[in-house]
Amino acid sequence: MPEHDADLREKGEVFMPKFGPDGLLTGVVVDASSREVLMVAHLDQEALDATRETGLAHFHSRSRGKLWCKGETSGNVLKVQDILVDCDQDAIVIVAEPAGPACHTGARSCFYRKLDAHGRLMESDA
Amino acid sequence: MPEHDADLREKGEVFMPKFGPDGLLTGVVVDASSREVLMVAHLDQEALDATRETGLAHFHSRSRGKLWCKGETSGNVLKVQDILVDCDQDAIVIVAEPAGPACHTGARSCFYRKLDAHGRLMESDA
Repeated sequence: MPEHDADLREKGEVFMPKFGPDGLLTGVVVDASSREVLMVAHLDQEALDATRETGLAHFHSRSRGKLWCKGETSGNVLKVQDILVDCDQDAIVIVAEPAGPACHTGARSCFYRKLDAHGRLMESDA
Repeated sequence: MPEHDADLREKGEVFMPKFGPDGLLTGVVVDASSREVLMVAHLDQEALDATRETGLAHFHSRSRGKLWCKGETSGNVLKVQDILVDCDQDAIVIVAEPAGPACHTGARSCFYRKLDAHGRLMESDA
């Protein structure tokens, strides 16, 4: 990428999302109240547009290859409060109010485990 | 992926990181004190091993195609406190104590801007 573009992306006021070779950027959802990281998923242009237009977090399902409104079947939608953008514009943080558990397992957050000292997974209290 | 593997990944105690077709998983770094999201980067097996062995966050640079210790030149390393793992084990949250600004621009976090109502980027106070 030309230096000029990199500079614009870092310092400019223009939103120029940088999608990867797979057409996706990374979305990190954090709880608007607790700031806890709830989930990580990916957005293509379509998912980004749908998220901004509806105020509900949408993603691109890599396994199903299509647009996905988080909570469309469970009702556990994510109401978007803010969208933060990183320096090189290839990742966003979606600050959202969750209508229910964010994880399909029923956990509040998908990050319900952490690595212990022995490299095993244990329940996280985070 | 067989249903069995998916089940093991979600419920088991065994860490079975799921790298994407590019050999990478997503790493979200949050500040151990404020819980603010500081940066998003990617890890391959080598970066994951180096992170766990040294206690300093390492990533795989997609542009340079090699292992990268965050802060190796600036000194702004990220001291790892915890590693959280998500349901399908293709993303981790690195809870870390930053030795300085996490962003190469000098900002505390890479997410120093947010989208305003008109789709422009403005400084974030998050």
